[in-house]
Amino acid sequence: MVKHIISTRDLERDAIDTLLDKAITISKKWPDNRPLQGKILGLLFFEPSTRTRMSFESAMLRLGGTCLNLGGPEVSSVSKGETLADTIRVVNGYVDALVLRHPRIGAAQMACEFSRVPVINGGDGSGQHPSQTLIDLFTIRESMPLDDIQVGMIGDLNYGRTTHSLAYALAKYEATIHTVTPDGLGFPRSVIDNLADMNLQIIQHQTIEEIVDELDVLYVTRIQRERFPDVASYLHVASGYRIFPELFDNVTKNLIILHPLPRLDEIDPGVDSLPYAKYFRQSDNGIPVRMAMLTDVLG
Amino acid sequence: MVKHIISTRDLERDAIDTLLDKAITISKKWPDNRPLQGKILGLLFFEPSTRTRMSFESAMLRLGGTCLNLGGPEVSSVSKGETLADTIRVVNGYVDALVLRHPRIGAAQMACEFSRVPVINGGDGSGQHPSQTLIDLFTIRESMPLDDIQVGMIGDLNYGRTTHSLAYALAKYEATIHTVTPDGLGFPRSVIDNLADMNLQIIQHQTIEEIVDELDVLYVTRIQRERFPDVASYLHVASGYRIFPELFDNVTKNLIILHPLPRLDEIDPGVDSLPYAKYFRQSDNGIPVRMAMLTDVLG
Amino acid sequence: MVKHIISTRDLERDAIDTLLDKAITISKKWPDNRPLQGKILGLLFFEPSTRTRMSFESAMLRLGGTCLNLGGPEVSSVSKGETLADTIRVVNGYVDALVLRHPRIGAAQMACEFSRVPVINGGDGSGQHPSQTLIDLFTIRESMPLDDIQVGMIGDLNYGRTTHSLAYALAKYEATIHTVTPDGLGFPRSVIDNLADMNLQIIQHQTIEEIVDELDVLYVTRIQRERFPDVASYLHVASGYRIFPELFDNVTKNLIILHPLPRLDEIDPGVDSLPYAKYFRQSDNGIPVRMAMLTDVLG
Repeated sequence: MVKHIISTRDLERDAIDTLLDKAITISKKWPDNRPLQGKILGLLFFEPSTRTRMSFESAMLRLGGTCLNLGGPEVSSVSKGETLADTIRVVNGYVDALVLRHPRIGAAQMACEFSRVPVINGGDGSGQHPSQTLIDLFTIRESMPLDDIQVGMIGDLNYGRTTHSLAYALAKYEATIHTVTPDGLGFPRSVIDNLADMNLQIIQHQTIEEIVDELDVLYVTRIQRERFPDVASYLHVASGYRIFPELFDNVTKNLIILHPLPRLDEIDPGVDSLPYAKYFRQSDNGIPVRMAMLTDVLG
Repeated sequence: MVKHIISTRDLERDAIDTLLDKAITISKKWPDNRPLQGKILGLLFFEPSTRTRMSFESAMLRLGGTCLNLGGPEVSSVSKGETLADTIRVVNGYVDALVLRHPRIGAAQMACEFSRVPVINGGDGSGQHPSQTLIDLFTIRESMPLDDIQVGMIGDLNYGRTTHSLAYALAKYEATIHTVTPDGLGFPRSVIDNLADMNLQIIQHQTIEEIVDELDVLYVTRIQRERFPDVASYLHVASGYRIFPELFDNVTKNLIILHPLPRLDEIDPGVDSLPYAKYFRQSDNGIPVRMAMLTDVLG
Repeated sequence: MVKHIISTRDLERDAIDTLLDKAITISKKWPDNRPLQGKILGLLFFEPSTRTRMSFESAMLRLGGTCLNLGGPEVSSVSKGETLADTIRVVNGYVDALVLRHPRIGAAQMACEFSRVPVINGGDGSGQHPSQTLIDLFTIRESMPLDDIQVGMIGDLNYGRTTHSLAYALAKYEATIHTVTPDGLGFPRSVIDNLADMNLQIIQHQTIEEIVDELDVLYVTRIQRERFPDVASYLHVASGYRIFPELFDNVTKNLIILHPLPRLDEIDPGVDSLPYAKYFRQSDNGIPVRMAMLTDVLG
């Protein structure tokens, strides 16, 4: 049976742990036997996502495989108006597995129905982004057990699929989530309802200062300028959700700070040298985690 | 001597058969010894053609070789106004063989004059597209001998180089071609004259219904919207050249349906599950056929 | 310690000679043991430069390594407004070495400060372009010793970093430079001052005819149309800086003609068949020279 990776929400906790274990093994010693030599990974990106693409591509190359790129401006000429089903069927002939990035929620799930080769969801609209979530979990697990942790999420939690996808996964590990967001940029109602069904507790806070002491993980996200009517109101709001070194002067817990990157102003560069800052480590972790995903579906 | 593949029209029937034989061998058992390891294929695409490019790229990777991509928006910066001759000379230094796609008819032929490495024509304007034609012939030969077959061609036969290129090749196998096209979208006069010189018989029909029973192959092509003054006249015309399941209810011959893809509305999805539908198989066949072409010029 | 290649101006003559020696060894016998297998070269191009990119990519493939491409329209989505420092840190996780092309002078130098992997400058604004200069020197050295030669430079010496970069390197070999340029397109004041500090002698001439007899090397560059108010004035000026076969009718020295390509009208195609014409050879030399650079930083 063909193996797909579409959503961390639907993955059992055991399956997540197995993937993370595999990634840890890989991160300690990269395979030197080129286990995927001769295999071709197709990168079918219907919207740009250079980091996700490059990171998967690097992971595939590290495993001895090769990549077929389809992205950016070219993708329109792939489809020329044809259905996603036809595109998947055609590209199937070229590759051994597919990473699909698509602006429409549910696209990766639909692609599985027509694909003879494994499909990995590289992000589907405001839906899932399982490789990012596995990277987040992997990075947390490098510092602490995943069970029963206090996770702060600050910034825009409305539009960012990264935090939704992570929250669904954390629910399986009995985390508590503390949110600090501008008005109107909290979790969408549907996400809150789903998380409640999974017994995940969400506590809203007015400022990051009031909760930072209790956190094991602080997950920072970008507040996008284009959500605001003008630059002044953006700056006014965003300044309240900015992370700076002094914020951590009195923390006693060994918390870690994550960010899916790229960052703009939401993390002061002074934070980079604090021992809590793990966002570049998190970015690097994309390689072993995606290597684990690729060997899982192709190995 | 450097070996090029520019046109199926100029290829002897023996040379075509040899390439098809090689492709059949490859399609039965892909080489596992990476025969082109260390070789670099340059993909020099002066107009977009994602499928042709990806398919050649996949074929090269399957043979253990690697690709250097040059296409889409980048190609303009290659040339920066220089002559095609200079571009070919420079790119020759980077690669072991070239696939050239160019909007100008005769470009691939001209490129051969300046190239120290093999050139494969990936389509030159309304001229030739030999790899597509070899794929079409290969797919037909999977179902029947190539000699003396009845081939229906429906849709736009004026602008599509695919059908011209195929017709020239079929002439070597004494096929009869039956055409069903809107007014003004039949074969161009020059193609008809050339085919007549090659003793290929072309019979025009008003509807596909009147001939479908006698066909061994039905080759469907896209009617491009931009050829019509407005959507209404496009829809009105195109609906008469659409293939749907009921069309085949009473056929007695074991015909096959081909389409160079992508398709829009010209083949009803209901046709996909008929045993006659071979267009996805045809697309998959691009890999062994292009592997055969690459080993032919580089092996 | 991580090894970078940022500027030929800062490279000692010994370091240049070592790189050129290595390139000569490679050009005589390409390594067949794939010394960089398993290594990934990142091509981070913030402005288009297809030749430099393709040539580095080909060199890396020839050494058995692989490439991760980041260029053209995609690069904007890499950065999404983040700092170059952050981009370098993130891309570091994907690759074993980086070629950086950037419109800002000094960008490559800055990138080194943040990079854990070797950085090769692929051109930084009007700054340095060390691989091109090494190729120029390599091509000269194929015909003559590098010491004490007479080098003519014709065309636009104001905007072209290629000639600046080459002049700085030639200063280490006690060359004399003869310039023939339109008004306003001579070396910038700062470059002249720097070269004077390095004791390089620059002699200005009115026409190429008056000096061609004494040259060992004639370096031709493009005069860009967009520097002129209209086509007529461009044509009027450019015609005086055009190289044609008759120019060499009476030369007695065994000079060589170089050009960084692409050329437009500044070299008559009739020159191509003269024994002096080495610009296509120069282009081909990009591969062994860049192979030498890559093994130097990655080997």
